[in-house]
Amino acid sequence: MQDRSPSDVVKPEVRRLSAYTLTHFEADVKLDQNENPYEIPMDLKREVVERVLRRPWGRYPEFVPAALIKTLAKYSGWREDGILVGNGSNELIQATLTVTLGPGRSLAAPQPTFTLYKLMATALQAKVIDVPLNPEDLTFDVDGLIQAARWSEVVVVCCPNNPTGTLLDPDALAAVLKNARGLVLIDEAYHEFSGQTALPLLPKHPNLVVLRTFSKAMAMAGLRFGYLMAHPEIAREIYKAKLPYNVNIFTLAAADIVVEKRAVLREAISKLVQERERVTGELQRRPAVRVFPSKANFVLIRTPKPARDLFDALYKQGVLVRDVSAYPLLERCLRVSIGLPEENDRFIKALDRVLENTP
Amino acid sequence: MQDRSPSDVVKPEVRRLSAYTLTHFEADVKLDQNENPYEIPMDLKREVVERVLRRPWGRYPEFVPAALIKTLAKYSGWREDGILVGNGSNELIQATLTVTLGPGRSLAAPQPTFTLYKLMATALQAKVIDVPLNPEDLTFDVDGLIQAARWSEVVVVCCPNNPTGTLLDPDALAAVLKNARGLVLIDEAYHEFSGQTALPLLPKHPNLVVLRTFSKAMAMAGLRFGYLMAHPEIAREIYKAKLPYNVNIFTLAAADIVVEKRAVLREAISKLVQERERVTGELQRRPAVRVFPSKANFVLIRTPKPARDLFDALYKQGVLVRDVSAYPLLERCLRVSIGLPEENDRFIKALDRVLENTP
Repeated sequence: MQDRSPSDVVKPEVRRLSAYTLTHFEADVKLDQNENPYEIPMDLKREVVERVLRRPWGRYPEFVPAALIKTLAKYSGWREDGILVGNGSNELIQATLTVTLGPGRSLAAPQPTFTLYKLMATALQAKVIDVPLNPEDLTFDVDGLIQAARWSEVVVVCCPNNPTGTLLDPDALAAVLKNARGLVLIDEAYHEFSGQTALPLLPKHPNLVVLRTFSKAMAMAGLRFGYLMAHPEIAREIYKAKLPYNVNIFTLAAADIVVEKRAVLREAISKLVQERERVTGELQRRPAVRVFPSKANFVLIRTPKPARDLFDALYKQGVLVRDVSAYPLLERCLRVSIGLPEENDRFIKALDRVLENTP
Repeated sequence: MQDRSPSDVVKPEVRRLSAYTLTHFEADVKLDQNENPYEIPMDLKREVVERVLRRPWGRYPEFVPAALIKTLAKYSGWREDGILVGNGSNELIQATLTVTLGPGRSLAAPQPTFTLYKLMATALQAKVIDVPLNPEDLTFDVDGLIQAARWSEVVVVCCPNNPTGTLLDPDALAAVLKNARGLVLIDEAYHEFSGQTALPLLPKHPNLVVLRTFSKAMAMAGLRFGYLMAHPEIAREIYKAKLPYNVNIFTLAAADIVVEKRAVLREAISKLVQERERVTGELQRRPAVRVFPSKANFVLIRTPKPARDLFDALYKQGVLVRDVSAYPLLERCLRVSIGLPEENDRFIKALDRVLENTP
């Protein structure tokens, strides 16, 4: 080693980055990660486990999990050769950005949104073009997205957006697609709660890439599974940056079984949507709370209290939410996942208790 | 979309790449992926499965799997804050290269070696400096590695090397470390079969990064687990390109249990080493076969027959091996994993049958 620090070889863009981290808090009522509180039924879990016990663990997973891709194609209606599977959708975001971004290239993204897009693009030394949400109602700035799309290799839109719950309507998306000079990546992590998908636009838009995850509605956050849909020409290129054998045998079995038996999740999803509307309605009746209409399984709220104080006060009552007040435009905001009805009630009660004590 | 093909936004370096692929062949005797043929005992598998059934699947894995990292630290003797875990060691190779490589930066690697290093570096638009093995015996060109290390942000050495089975001796490694301008990544995927590790050099070499996998000796290729050991200053930087929640709850449980009970694998490892020596000895007695001494769980052989013909003829007899003849320096070479004794016998018999029929 020559006379310098070994971390000097790390790219300056990476050295300046703060890592994506999340402090772990234990809590009775966990509403901080937009997880699905309705677990997959135990009989399905046992079916997964039995299938895995019959497989050799010392053998690599299939290079291309053909059976699962066939199932996903049937489920989604998209073609098999345009589907990639990943260790969570995060891995497919990473692969998409790796094949398209580098110095002198750029990613356009609404701001605020899921932070990983920007982190990855920066590690790849690409420029990030922020397109701020409309500050009053936190909806997407469609004209801003269209402008940015003309100059960026990739535009990413999380739809519904995390952490605001907002949708980009299909006409606006069509306009972005039409004007984009490169790919438009629609992250549909929460789409099952919204009743909307970009999928119908896919056949006619070869620059559209649609991402899905099993971590939210599908109740499989612990297992890590996501998939991507694109035209085969694009899927083939993204595939080159995807790691081989990226999805383990357990997750492959679980994804396959859960897609086949997805009817069992339908009730959980409609219950969560119903609860989201109930919680939103309840919060709207409180003058101290501004709640932003959400199409996901969480709501964003703003109160007069500093977010950190409110977070702490809720946590003292056993309710864990996400403090998102450090994001641009989200001063005094918290993101609260929709949980079981009794969990949502505990959150509202805890919130009332704190806000009543606020002068 | 403006008037051009959407794949035009893919980086030219990526478009020129061929993807890492492997054609799937069914076979009685599977000696193509360097897997461990001795399965983890069923009682351990049941222990893993029971632990996983007790956990909620809808909840994300821990952000940092502290308990497992503690176990790995105890097992390896390296410090907890210098350990990262990954979805296979592939993911950690990718993270290491992502934080260090880009245009104007370079990766030095022996040639031939595991192909993924070069693929990833190319996707990151870095230059790859090939350091050919010594052509006669396929050992490492130590002087060549030292020279390349002076000019590259990263030198990677798979040790024992895949697909040759060769080791880099500790003095040579120390010389590379001393002369390197950046990181030296030692991929120890096969180290358990070699009785050698770079770990003792780690405390005094802050530019050393050591990679391990559970896919070979640990018999967990289907579960995808790997870990990385480095100085905390370096681990912290590599961490920034590692995906959050990258290891699923099933693999975390399995890795934890397998490390705790690793004694059960010791016998399998020594059996495989013994078989490697037996197979090598048997092959050395055949004048038509050149076998390269290996310290891994595979052997590389060269015969007078075109590799593709030999591959096909073995496959017709139910024995699947890896044709590596397209790699530089490996004309007429096949890589053959060490299997169960009876599998190795079937391979030798099949080989004899083909070579006897060769004029």
